Amino acid sequence: MNPNFEEIGKEFVKQYYLQFDNIVTRPNVVNFYNAETSLMTFEGKQLQGAPAIMDKFSSLGFKNISRMITAVDPQPMFDGGIVISVIGRLQCDEDPPHAFSQVFVLKPLNATFVLQHDIFRLGIHDTA
Amino acid sequence: MNPNFEEIGKEFVKQYYLQFDNIVTRPNVVNFYNAETSLMTFEGKQLQGAPAIMDKFSSLGFKNISRMITAVDPQPMFDGGIVISVIGRLQCDEDPPHAFSQVFVLKPLNATFVLQHDIFRLGIHDTA
Repeated sequence: MNPNFEEIGKEFVKQYYLQFDNIVTRPNVVNFYNAETSLMTFEGKQLQGAPAIMDKFSSLGFKNISRMITAVDPQPMFDGGIVISVIGRLQCDEDPPHAFSQVFVLKPLNATFVLQHDIFRLGIHDTA
Repeated sequence: MNPNFEEIGKEFVKQYYLQFDNIVTRPNVVNFYNAETSLMTFEGKQLQGAPAIMDKFSSLGFKNISRMITAVDPQPMFDGGIVISVIGRLQCDEDPPHAFSQVFVLKPLNATFVLQHDIFRLGIHDTA
């Protein structure tokens, strides 16, 4: 297991959102995904491979995100990978803020990592 | 990859919370974890192995949970495992309800699965 999972996981999350949250740099997140094998579940929709994932991001219709991270919990995996749970709040352009949850699984690949699994959900709950 | 990941993931989540949410059956969740290798991050606290995880659950001080699941997103892994993201709301005894996020990673073991990774967070966000 990677002894630096905590540091690597937190730095990954920071770098990912730094690119994602600005419409100018958002296309750069393509570099985190594998062209064929990366899997993403975006609000329940299943996507495979960087091109399909980037198409989805391009269709989202907002420019910038203001994001407040509440917690980043990385955990080491036995194959050297890292599973990371993120919760927080985000605001797209002038929309109302929403809670969100995102799960990343990083897989070791040569001297770096590929974003193998990505699951995103807005925390829009039915009122009880 | 397991073609039945969606069905297996959703059934796992159902069975896990069915046992966990009642104080009488909560000790049964020990059967989902490996005694030595299962990892849990509970509100940022890292635990390893079923005994340490069960000790944590025993210390929680509430009897029953009313849980409303908002979304369960399972995704297949290349080793035959399943990563599952769950968001919802829960109420412990008479406490106020809270949003929660939980990530499970199931690893195939013989004809079944072991709960290899578990990350739990209540969604208590700083007000922006």
